[in-house]
Amino acid sequence: MVRVGIVGATGYGGAELIRLLAGHPHVEIANVYSSSSEGESLEKSFPHVAGLRLPTLSPIDADSMSGVNDLIFLATPAGVSSTLSPKLVEKGLKVIDLSGDFRLENGAVYKTWYKHEPAPSQWVEAAIYGLTEWNQEQVAGASLIANPGCYPTATLLALLPLVKTGWVQPNSWIVDAKSGVSGAGRGVALGVHYSEINESIHAYKVANHQHTPEIEQELQKQSGEETLVQFTPHLVPMTRGILVTAYGQLTTDVTQSQIQELYEATYADKPFVRVRPAGSHPHTKEVYGSNYCDIAIHVDQRTRRVILLSVIDNMMKGAAGQAVQNMNVMFNLPEKTGLPLVPVFP
Amino acid sequence: MVRVGIVGATGYGGAELIRLLAGHPHVEIANVYSSSSEGESLEKSFPHVAGLRLPTLSPIDADSMSGVNDLIFLATPAGVSSTLSPKLVEKGLKVIDLSGDFRLENGAVYKTWYKHEPAPSQWVEAAIYGLTEWNQEQVAGASLIANPGCYPTATLLALLPLVKTGWVQPNSWIVDAKSGVSGAGRGVALGVHYSEINESIHAYKVANHQHTPEIEQELQKQSGEETLVQFTPHLVPMTRGILVTAYGQLTTDVTQSQIQELYEATYADKPFVRVRPAGSHPHTKEVYGSNYCDIAIHVDQRTRRVILLSVIDNMMKGAAGQAVQNMNVMFNLPEKTGLPLVPVFP
Amino acid sequence: MVRVGIVGATGYGGAELIRLLAGHPHVEIANVYSSSSEGESLEKSFPHVAGLRLPTLSPIDADSMSGVNDLIFLATPAGVSSTLSPKLVEKGLKVIDLSGDFRLENGAVYKTWYKHEPAPSQWVEAAIYGLTEWNQEQVAGASLIANPGCYPTATLLALLPLVKTGWVQPNSWIVDAKSGVSGAGRGVALGVHYSEINESIHAYKVANHQHTPEIEQELQKQSGEETLVQFTPHLVPMTRGILVTAYGQLTTDVTQSQIQELYEATYADKPFVRVRPAGSHPHTKEVYGSNYCDIAIHVDQRTRRVILLSVIDNMMKGAAGQAVQNMNVMFNLPEKTGLPLVPVFP
Amino acid sequence: MVRVGIVGATGYGGAELIRLLAGHPHVEIANVYSSSSEGESLEKSFPHVAGLRLPTLSPIDADSMSGVNDLIFLATPAGVSSTLSPKLVEKGLKVIDLSGDFRLENGAVYKTWYKHEPAPSQWVEAAIYGLTEWNQEQVAGASLIANPGCYPTATLLALLPLVKTGWVQPNSWIVDAKSGVSGAGRGVALGVHYSEINESIHAYKVANHQHTPEIEQELQKQSGEETLVQFTPHLVPMTRGILVTAYGQLTTDVTQSQIQELYEATYADKPFVRVRPAGSHPHTKEVYGSNYCDIAIHVDQRTRRVILLSVIDNMMKGAAGQAVQNMNVMFNLPEKTGLPLVPVFP
Repeated sequence: MVRVGIVGATGYGGAELIRLLAGHPHVEIANVYSSSSEGESLEKSFPHVAGLRLPTLSPIDADSMSGVNDLIFLATPAGVSSTLSPKLVEKGLKVIDLSGDFRLENGAVYKTWYKHEPAPSQWVEAAIYGLTEWNQEQVAGASLIANPGCYPTATLLALLPLVKTGWVQPNSWIVDAKSGVSGAGRGVALGVHYSEINESIHAYKVANHQHTPEIEQELQKQSGEETLVQFTPHLVPMTRGILVTAYGQLTTDVTQSQIQELYEATYADKPFVRVRPAGSHPHTKEVYGSNYCDIAIHVDQRTRRVILLSVIDNMMKGAAGQAVQNMNVMFNLPEKTGLPLVPVFP
Repeated sequence: MVRVGIVGATGYGGAELIRLLAGHPHVEIANVYSSSSEGESLEKSFPHVAGLRLPTLSPIDADSMSGVNDLIFLATPAGVSSTLSPKLVEKGLKVIDLSGDFRLENGAVYKTWYKHEPAPSQWVEAAIYGLTEWNQEQVAGASLIANPGCYPTATLLALLPLVKTGWVQPNSWIVDAKSGVSGAGRGVALGVHYSEINESIHAYKVANHQHTPEIEQELQKQSGEETLVQFTPHLVPMTRGILVTAYGQLTTDVTQSQIQELYEATYADKPFVRVRPAGSHPHTKEVYGSNYCDIAIHVDQRTRRVILLSVIDNMMKGAAGQAVQNMNVMFNLPEKTGLPLVPVFP
Repeated sequence: MVRVGIVGATGYGGAELIRLLAGHPHVEIANVYSSSSEGESLEKSFPHVAGLRLPTLSPIDADSMSGVNDLIFLATPAGVSSTLSPKLVEKGLKVIDLSGDFRLENGAVYKTWYKHEPAPSQWVEAAIYGLTEWNQEQVAGASLIANPGCYPTATLLALLPLVKTGWVQPNSWIVDAKSGVSGAGRGVALGVHYSEINESIHAYKVANHQHTPEIEQELQKQSGEETLVQFTPHLVPMTRGILVTAYGQLTTDVTQSQIQELYEATYADKPFVRVRPAGSHPHTKEVYGSNYCDIAIHVDQRTRRVILLSVIDNMMKGAAGQAVQNMNVMFNLPEKTGLPLVPVFP
Repeated sequence: MVRVGIVGATGYGGAELIRLLAGHPHVEIANVYSSSSEGESLEKSFPHVAGLRLPTLSPIDADSMSGVNDLIFLATPAGVSSTLSPKLVEKGLKVIDLSGDFRLENGAVYKTWYKHEPAPSQWVEAAIYGLTEWNQEQVAGASLIANPGCYPTATLLALLPLVKTGWVQPNSWIVDAKSGVSGAGRGVALGVHYSEINESIHAYKVANHQHTPEIEQELQKQSGEETLVQFTPHLVPMTRGILVTAYGQLTTDVTQSQIQELYEATYADKPFVRVRPAGSHPHTKEVYGSNYCDIAIHVDQRTRRVILLSVIDNMMKGAAGQAVQNMNVMFNLPEKTGLPLVPVFP
């Protein structure tokens, strides 16, 4: 049994990790940590976990975490993991960081977009970007995983196969993303107030969302070309789900079926990516509660653009689900272990 | 492995059964049946099941069901099971019927409330009412299970412990129930049209919902007293979840803590009933996607009434979840096998 | 033109008053007051009012309010109006208080349920309870209106005609109420966090909501009999709307059509109460954005109970709409002036 | 008083017209027409209009419409108006057609995208495209108005000022649009089933939505340049509202403030277009129930793109509201007459 500790257990990311790990056949939830609520039962924060017999909440303290855990998940705000994770790895713990602290290789870029001090550069270099389908080998040997952001996960899984081909102008990518509200976390704010958000949609952080450089960095890694992505997130009146609608200008006369074949081949043995039949329009609900990323491909002959549709559950493939998938790979378990195989529908 | 067949696989009840059974360690989904769509893949109806490698849809035909299944789940409209289930049981199959056809012991009452011909009386007598927590022994030996209705499940689990005590006037029960829309099924109608239902709540079938006699029958079985229940269902703008708010007039000076203790004792070893701490107000979301029924008890000293709050996921404990729980009991498997232990939250 | 001032203009009640009063042909919005944001444009808080050319926000100061307003609306939390309103009336201003500070005639009862000091008793006596349909004459001559609570409005309009007849046992009333989230106001809290409330329903303040004594007081005024009401509010995943489902035990063999006639006669000349045809199930959406209260009557012959269904928009007939209706009566304007005549549907 | 007739009164477009026209000071709703329900009260279809004393439903028959109406609104499916409207205009009636039958100047294009026979070309030529802010003079003198589509309205008001400048590459426009469900009308279908749509978002008709040529045609009229627009609609779990997020590649080094000034100047005297402050992210809810189109401008210096955000209520500025605005202009009434000035918020 892998003994896991969860830091940030009273947030939504923590709750989703508990849902998955409590049913995982090779995991023991050994410790749950929170910056407040020390000694309290997690049921007080989350009545839905009643009856699970989880440990009570412990304070976040690196020293006390070693010896009693094999792996730590960090579901913490930006700026926490950058100092905590190095200490944990030095003590021999494996770490999967769900925050953005180790995703950007360039510290200056991190500082510009996150408005925090970057993590030490040698630790950033040591961290592995945990987009499982694309980095499986490195994940297997990693001590520190930078678990991808929700928007980058849905975007990269959709764009990477094409980006490698050169069939699309690198600077033409426009990524129009739509997210449920849970991605904003459990903190109270007017921006997540029910009456403000219900029956309404709006864009936010146009031209300056911090997931932009993460997407660009990973695309560039695969294409070798400088790539500027236009990324626009929107808040949708629903709790879970991300839909990415991505537009790329084709440079060749490639057909829809060629692209379809490319995607089916790329993801043939990837259990959590489902390439949908040509002409599909995936609904976010069709992956609700699951670790799937469903992708559909459209080519518009009039405009010579490819339009990619990609849906995930932001709490799952966009956060906790992918984190558990990475854990499975790190501990040499079958990739699907402990992850629900059928979405909750309707 | 238990070989199961699902009749009505293209409806919501069927979809939820597939979600549970596809991950069940002792089950093989051997066949899926539908009155239409013969030979088609289930993915065509339900894209969310893509990748599961389920059998294609077969027509509903009793003769061809034996030999290739051990158990048949019926997730069919009223009036189908009454003729189909007897044939299946006669062929040696076990049957769990999610419809109302075998729940009411009195055929005339069935006809009055359901507007269909009742099932043959000997078969109604043979059927076991599958409220697992209260009828576990009979379920274990049953060939034909009448799986309880969604509203009755949430109501009965909340009322039965008190009904047995005599602390409440039998005819004082008022059950004000609120349900998500999935309970209405997948058929299209103005009453489930998004724009009509969103941002709105309404009562329906006041004083004449067919779950009324089912609730009364089961209460009377436990109390031995004639009981008239005032049952009012409401449609709430959400997909899943039932909240029952039940009011009973106390006949004695019993205290809140006495009732609390009674409930905790009654359900101490029942894994899917969680008696919440005194003063709780359970949210339906706190059982979303799970098989739990969470119950909270309030006593109003001013009015000498007990107010019971009971929440379930109508697709789970109110339908497919309880059906799988019954299957586990029938096949001598641990009751929780294959059922999610943590609700999907948020 | 009536010069009105709005105190609490940055809350939801204030916003709804502005919506109504900006289009009112006999009103000038002379001043808007807020405890914060002095000197700011209201557009900063509420972008939806852009272009209206409203006055900037002024601080709440009784002295500066006279001379520049004829009428003050208070859309403030409990405990503000109890001291502010008397000062305003003494300066010759008319006041419509949307809070609960002047609704309860008994100061001790107020203190018990509201946990605040009650307003001075002579001022409570002077205040008129502004349930327009029932107190129109007193409203016409009032200086200080206690505008009814949202739940009491929906409840009282439904119950009062029957309560006067004696056809229902006074202590049998059970009022199961369901409300949208806007009733909780604009303040941020976990209880109004989108991801917690969406796709969920729950009861709250069972047996201790402060609208209980308000309902009982007004019923008793009409019936002359002591009356205990069982009142249970619920939070529904929608922004606006209240549905009251009320249950009363009949004492006589009165028929549904007799009750129907009673209601139609009672409200025949009341433009904002619509008695729906026998057997109706009103949807809250059918009064959305309007000042209507729609009422439907059901008699259950089995149980000899009457079930009343009553729907309002909590922001309108439950708050700002009724306040404007009262203003119209106070200033001798036609009752419907400035109030939308058709709900927003769908 | 203008005597108006409404064809298609039992649909959502008809309902919204009734909401606006019932309160319009210079209009009498003289007749309501429906292809079914002859002789019935409109309350039977729409309980929310109870109490309005509207005429009963008449069958759709051109001959009987003249003499008793001055103006006919058609809120009908594609293919009805193309034959009905010419007859009405020939009888001397003015017509405002909310369908797409007279919007596309090229009949072959209409047939390609709508899969119906186009209207007679002389009638298409005679029709005026009723985007009020841009065609006010022609609207004033028109007999037949082609009321713009919901998506084109939100798109064109946002793009037209820029399109006239030449600052954006004509073929670079990508219009990613998000709509509430009411735009799909009142007909029942799985695609508007509550449980399928709630808590989910999806794209539809990628690369082939019939509003694409309408947008292109109107852009080309103003720019004089051939323009291909990439238009993608999405269905959002809400009833009302459209958000358009539009991306254009800048050809010059124009600044955000220059574009801001252009828009403010363009719409300075247009009461229903509100150019929001630089950096704004309009929410659809901020125009709910109103006839406003709110526009915000963002320039991304990294990518040299302009991102335009535009929100409307699809039932209002996207359909019935703009139709009434056009009626006001046609009958020489102030443009705002009878149109709500403050959105319903929250």
